[in-house]
Amino acid sequence: MTYCVAVTTEKGLVFVSDSRTNAGIDNVSTYSKMHRFESGSDRRFVLLSAGNLATTQGVVQQLNKDIEQYAPLNLMTLAGISDAAEYIGNINVRQEEKHTTSGVNYEASFIIGGQIAGSSSEIYLVYPQGNYITTSAYTPYLQIGEGKYGKTIMDRILTPDLSLETAALCAMISMDSTMNSNMTVGPPIEVSMYPADSFSLDRYYCFDEHSEYLRELRRSWDRNLKEAFNRMPPIAWATNWDEQQNTQ
Amino acid sequence: MTYCVAVTTEKGLVFVSDSRTNAGIDNVSTYSKMHRFESGSDRRFVLLSAGNLATTQGVVQQLNKDIEQYAPLNLMTLAGISDAAEYIGNINVRQEEKHTTSGVNYEASFIIGGQIAGSSSEIYLVYPQGNYITTSAYTPYLQIGEGKYGKTIMDRILTPDLSLETAALCAMISMDSTMNSNMTVGPPIEVSMYPADSFSLDRYYCFDEHSEYLRELRRSWDRNLKEAFNRMPPIAWATNWDEQQNTQ
Repeated sequence: MTYCVAVTTEKGLVFVSDSRTNAGIDNVSTYSKMHRFESGSDRRFVLLSAGNLATTQGVVQQLNKDIEQYAPLNLMTLAGISDAAEYIGNINVRQEEKHTTSGVNYEASFIIGGQIAGSSSEIYLVYPQGNYITTSAYTPYLQIGEGKYGKTIMDRILTPDLSLETAALCAMISMDSTMNSNMTVGPPIEVSMYPADSFSLDRYYCFDEHSEYLRELRRSWDRNLKEAFNRMPPIAWATNWDEQQNTQ
Repeated sequence: MTYCVAVTTEKGLVFVSDSRTNAGIDNVSTYSKMHRFESGSDRRFVLLSAGNLATTQGVVQQLNKDIEQYAPLNLMTLAGISDAAEYIGNINVRQEEKHTTSGVNYEASFIIGGQIAGSSSEIYLVYPQGNYITTSAYTPYLQIGEGKYGKTIMDRILTPDLSLETAALCAMISMDSTMNSNMTVGPPIEVSMYPADSFSLDRYYCFDEHSEYLRELRRSWDRNLKEAFNRMPPIAWATNWDEQQNTQ
């Protein structure tokens, strides 16, 4: 499996992805799922990928080929991030269809985010069917892959006014929760932070399986979560919080 | 969807279930998913159900019919909780097969727990295929339905030495996290606590949608979780926690 998440705030974008790929539980490999594209000073993109590895590699190769061959439509000629989502969706559907006769699932999903000069920074989720969605003020994040374990903390914490550092910390805790509950999501963990209007992808970090920071993150969150639990008022069963039914 | 969870500790068993049933998002109803069976003083059972409503109702009706008709094999004649799991699995498969010709999914899952005199209290998860599993010291809980949102808190908190009250609080937070992230899981929330060797199902509680306790639980957990997040050390990007790669 895979877990990738992107967050948009007023301060810019955050991208976090794991690197574990598996075809069956005994065939586990490590592949980066974060791909960065840049050209000149007017546009920066980060692409996160989930799903069939042949399909995601095929899509990324096609994106690079279109740039190298100066195709009329490529990431460097598009007018907006939503156009990039449409373009990636079309390539994705074509890649998936290449092998569909065999009946196996070759689906892939992507998150494309970044900024093109003249517009705000944005993120889009591209589905296997080629259609796509973006965020809202109430849902400032997008997930692909195994998103449920890491959703609860983001639903509680993320708001559009957070700093990039706070949003990144929340996304990292979301990643840690997912790794803690699902063995098929694992390091290296890649993080990209894109400050709005910076047109710089310099803030890129990679934490491998020996990372002291990942260990400290888990220890701290585990400790803080247990303290939070221990500070909860006990369930006041006996004192009639509610009309307690006893149907015996 | 559904979320049901059962926890076993040295002190006994805890069962928590939601009551929302939906066939499509515009066809939402309320049904109890917690069924209690008792007879004389030598056995007590709690059954939690998830999946196709016709199948789960058919299974529960058959369990009751077998008891009423003094069938050779029924919940009141079985020697152990694992025998109950086997028996319920067989009934479940038969109920599912009644309608499988139409190609629709009629699968259901169950958690059966309780105690029979002479043995310890136990819980088992019965799959749609009729097979079943129990808990371990490392995994003292079982879930059916939409379990992923509520798994992370239980993975962090639950250990076999917890009091029933603490285990119940953890299961309730797990339920709250699930309801917060998934609209198809909802109140009334039913809770049964079975103190080991008590042979009593008296500790039963039901919290409906107007429950002040459910509201207070959500407020408290939301506040404590945000405090836990705010006490996290910031990500020390700049101070070389790790070898930070910057492949630009």
